[in-house]
Amino acid sequence: MLYFIGLGLSIKHLTLEAIDALRDVEKIYVDTYTNIVPDFSLDKLVSLVGEEKEFVMAKREFLEGKNIHFIVEEASKKNIAILVPGDPFIATTHDAIRVEALRRGIKVKVINGLSIYSLAPSRTGLQAYKFGKTVTLVYPEYFKPYSTIETIYDNLDRNLHTLLLLDLKIEENKAMTIPEAVDILIDLDERGVLENIIGVGLAQLGSSMEKIVADRLADLKNYTYPPPPHSIIIVAKPHPIELDNLHYVCGLPEHIYRRYSVSKTYP
Amino acid sequence: MLYFIGLGLSIKHLTLEAIDALRDVEKIYVDTYTNIVPDFSLDKLVSLVGEEKEFVMAKREFLEGKNIHFIVEEASKKNIAILVPGDPFIATTHDAIRVEALRRGIKVKVINGLSIYSLAPSRTGLQAYKFGKTVTLVYPEYFKPYSTIETIYDNLDRNLHTLLLLDLKIEENKAMTIPEAVDILIDLDERGVLENIIGVGLAQLGSSMEKIVADRLADLKNYTYPPPPHSIIIVAKPHPIELDNLHYVCGLPEHIYRRYSVSKTYP
Repeated sequence: MLYFIGLGLSIKHLTLEAIDALRDVEKIYVDTYTNIVPDFSLDKLVSLVGEEKEFVMAKREFLEGKNIHFIVEEASKKNIAILVPGDPFIATTHDAIRVEALRRGIKVKVINGLSIYSLAPSRTGLQAYKFGKTVTLVYPEYFKPYSTIETIYDNLDRNLHTLLLLDLKIEENKAMTIPEAVDILIDLDERGVLENIIGVGLAQLGSSMEKIVADRLADLKNYTYPPPPHSIIIVAKPHPIELDNLHYVCGLPEHIYRRYSVSKTYP
Repeated sequence: MLYFIGLGLSIKHLTLEAIDALRDVEKIYVDTYTNIVPDFSLDKLVSLVGEEKEFVMAKREFLEGKNIHFIVEEASKKNIAILVPGDPFIATTHDAIRVEALRRGIKVKVINGLSIYSLAPSRTGLQAYKFGKTVTLVYPEYFKPYSTIETIYDNLDRNLHTLLLLDLKIEENKAMTIPEAVDILIDLDERGVLENIIGVGLAQLGSSMEKIVADRLADLKNYTYPPPPHSIIIVAKPHPIELDNLHYVCGLPEHIYRRYSVSKTYP
């Protein structure tokens, strides 16, 4: 049997179901490369799930490419778990293993974990049904990420917020910060609307170091944040209760809060 | 201090953080009206968090309207928790209490729970970044829910899936089922595209009774499901790995799987 288990964004996000399964398996692959869980340590995990099992701190090469067959083969003989930051299938990284296991008739069990995908609306008070398509902003290396900007525009045209995940390639030591992302966005913004729109900076969301800041997008550069993972929400015209949340939950400055409390135009 | 705590979609979804907080507070309001958690019972909750505290099985009137002031006042004097099915702020029901507490300077702590909003993509293998705006389908009583259909069309035009939450008014004994929703959708579908599109029926998602079925939307009526909560995903043209997941994870029938594996048109 092959378990895919979500860790959440902090070790305290482990669910009862996850802990039961982790105690039960013979071997745990800890995915160390798809995201950063700031307060995670192997010692804490062992103290929660017991030490009489094998732990593998798995790099990308362990869980992708030809090793997929090795892991699926292993899961045909014993109970193993892949422990993934956040939720195991909100990113698409581990889809190939799941499909391969099911294709071969190996039993698969998915145990979900808290994901930025639901924490972003919940912890900011922006309404989940007002979010459009989620996108990732990557460093403009070989090409400029115009499609990301197009998605933001497309969402704004429908009055929908955009959850913008920031480039994170742990094994290459790349983790985009909120100030870096703001520069890239404003540089690509042909419509010239993003600078003044409300943005919400999310740093280490859900962890004890969490910082959430709402301000003009351009001004998100002026804050200090704990280290990545960072994300940004590009906010479409907020509903009055969302505006209250932006102020009281996310610290949107008083003068912006007051302006949009009476203004009909946005931004 | 006022805690908002997410229960998840099953009592086994409680996180370590949630259990710690629930043990710590003096009083727990259990929200019994915004969703159904099939395996929840007060006995199980007490066995997890201890009995030396007050438990209130709260109906809507306890947590809305003028009682908001009562609860906020209470939270100014002691530690209380509102335990909410799913995540506390994916639905907007409890926003008013959060804002009122923060406005009055009462400390608020949000402890997240697993939500259908992230479980729907994860458990089906449909990709989170291919979902557009989420909508609720309500019973057509006073007016027909054309705006829901418009959102589905708009998402399809952008090749985005739609998570369709189904009407659930527990205190009025109304809980829309997948077969009912299929009839309503096909009746409202002026474009005539929905019948043949792939739909995924989600019943009791995340619980031990969970049933996930993928088929032509019209044919989702031909299956039996455990009782609500039910939801549906309206699937835009699937990516090849999504098509694999629809077949291997969600049971999309072989002939549909084969057809779209080679066809360029959809549906």
